[in-house]
Amino acid sequence: MKERELIQCLSSMAVGAKEEALLCGIGDDCAVVRSGEGRVLLYSMDTLQEGVHFDLSWHPLKQLGRKSVTVNVSDIAAMGGRPKYFLFSLGIPPGFADARALQLSEGVVEACALYDCQLIGGDTVASPAGLSLTLTVIGEAREGQVVYRHGAQLGDIVYVSGPLGLSAAGLALFQAGEGDLAGFSRLYRAHCDPLAQVALGQRLAKSGLVNAMMDLSDGLATDLAHLCARSGLGARIFRHALPLDDECEQAAALLGRESLEWMISGGEDYALLLTAPKDAKQQLLALGEQAGQTLYPLGEMVQGAGVELVDAEGYARSVSYRGFDHFS
Amino acid sequence: MKERELIQCLSSMAVGAKEEALLCGIGDDCAVVRSGEGRVLLYSMDTLQEGVHFDLSWHPLKQLGRKSVTVNVSDIAAMGGRPKYFLFSLGIPPGFADARALQLSEGVVEACALYDCQLIGGDTVASPAGLSLTLTVIGEAREGQVVYRHGAQLGDIVYVSGPLGLSAAGLALFQAGEGDLAGFSRLYRAHCDPLAQVALGQRLAKSGLVNAMMDLSDGLATDLAHLCARSGLGARIFRHALPLDDECEQAAALLGRESLEWMISGGEDYALLLTAPKDAKQQLLALGEQAGQTLYPLGEMVQGAGVELVDAEGYARSVSYRGFDHFS
Repeated sequence: MKERELIQCLSSMAVGAKEEALLCGIGDDCAVVRSGEGRVLLYSMDTLQEGVHFDLSWHPLKQLGRKSVTVNVSDIAAMGGRPKYFLFSLGIPPGFADARALQLSEGVVEACALYDCQLIGGDTVASPAGLSLTLTVIGEAREGQVVYRHGAQLGDIVYVSGPLGLSAAGLALFQAGEGDLAGFSRLYRAHCDPLAQVALGQRLAKSGLVNAMMDLSDGLATDLAHLCARSGLGARIFRHALPLDDECEQAAALLGRESLEWMISGGEDYALLLTAPKDAKQQLLALGEQAGQTLYPLGEMVQGAGVELVDAEGYARSVSYRGFDHFS
Repeated sequence: MKERELIQCLSSMAVGAKEEALLCGIGDDCAVVRSGEGRVLLYSMDTLQEGVHFDLSWHPLKQLGRKSVTVNVSDIAAMGGRPKYFLFSLGIPPGFADARALQLSEGVVEACALYDCQLIGGDTVASPAGLSLTLTVIGEAREGQVVYRHGAQLGDIVYVSGPLGLSAAGLALFQAGEGDLAGFSRLYRAHCDPLAQVALGQRLAKSGLVNAMMDLSDGLATDLAHLCARSGLGARIFRHALPLDDECEQAAALLGRESLEWMISGGEDYALLLTAPKDAKQQLLALGEQAGQTLYPLGEMVQGAGVELVDAEGYARSVSYRGFDHFS
């Protein structure tokens, strides 16, 4: 059973009466629950597991602590909310020294301060193998401003709010043993210590210009395919529109890889993926700048289903759910 | 670092401005957050880890799924709330068959229906070793009715809302390889498939008679010591007042163990532990009966600190945090 399939299965089995206050359950970045006075609460839960999501041989613990908060806060940002509280369950493997647990904790506490949210509970347990960090983040938003995955409209422009593939490139450097990260500080930071775009998410939500939004955690090809499926549309994105990054290109050259693969399939970008009507373009670009981010228009929402990547010659191929192995 | 110490450490490091709406953070069964109109939201997170909290060689998966919800809902019950939503992160070890994941899920869904709460999100991840279940449960209560651990008053009677040590006795039978559970159905159920006392918790909270309450998860000696510490008092409980259970006594005889140890130190009772003024006794006992539970008065809150167990001869010994190895 693939990741998330079991949760979907659980969801379909849960046939109990749906609470009226539950505006959105499983299937978006957060669950959305009405809380009165025009406000909603947002809930997201994510686990980071050693050996699956991180490797302690290169991931500093403090940065890992920060990242565990960031990946959850990014889900709140993607709905246009602000984080308020979180709960933290830590699985500690045998022989994991107290000093290391404290370094990790310092990172968690720093991220709390950074995102202005507060640890209100949790659990620590012995883990038979591998460090495990599960967080539940609780956020808040105005009901009328929440942006879902399912709202994309035909003809909408598709944007990402930052460069793509940097985290994947950083990971590839680590995996190749390229420990000397001089000249690759952006890739290093993107992989080990990303930031959630909370301020931008809130501005976008407040603007009322955005029809659909989610965060980029599983790679553009997969995440955009989810957004398409939820919106009942397809998307066409253009290779020439994908934002190139110097460090990413240099890493690709160094490793004999193609940066395009990282940009399309690489996960953990933690930028925002959004769609908005064509006539909102200038306003949106300005709004991105005000929040210190660049919005890159990549293509548009079209009739059909799935994600197509169009190359310089106009040739389109399906990349839905990263359904390819190599680019020619 | 012992369980919960790291969370306490995190808590002390988190020096950011405390949200006004946060009525209670780390340190009680749930975090309590004001939500408007005189209501509060309750949050609790607990992890069950294979090899630490359960053993799949005797724990049926469906019952384990139910129990994972129950142990979290029990925290909501202990504050006097009702569960509404939960999030579920499942760590699946290598070779764990889909059919088994589905059995587990069926148990989770059954517990949802039982407690009238709804799965609204979560995560599934690969676990390098051992099944891991982390749940966050979200509950609701009236602000004025929430019962905390810290409210016990001098002279209060200490009650438990059910027999003690049954789960520990059931575990001991399994561990001893006593697979034939004929005659031990209560112990079996107490260990594999406990129930959270939500209806009782709500009645107790609504009554306004209870000064302090928590759920029994780590054993009476440890949990009552926590309640004492939070209330700035001690407790004296009487050996003759501890509720004996036939099956528990039979299991003790069979295994050459002492049921008293299970009653004092055994964990996972998932009954409620509470204190209330002496003059509320008749009302409370009646209220327990109405909710289908028996309240057992065990002793009283006294000046000082820690928990003392008084035997038939009037001799008192400290049992705080299960600080003993054997009873004479």
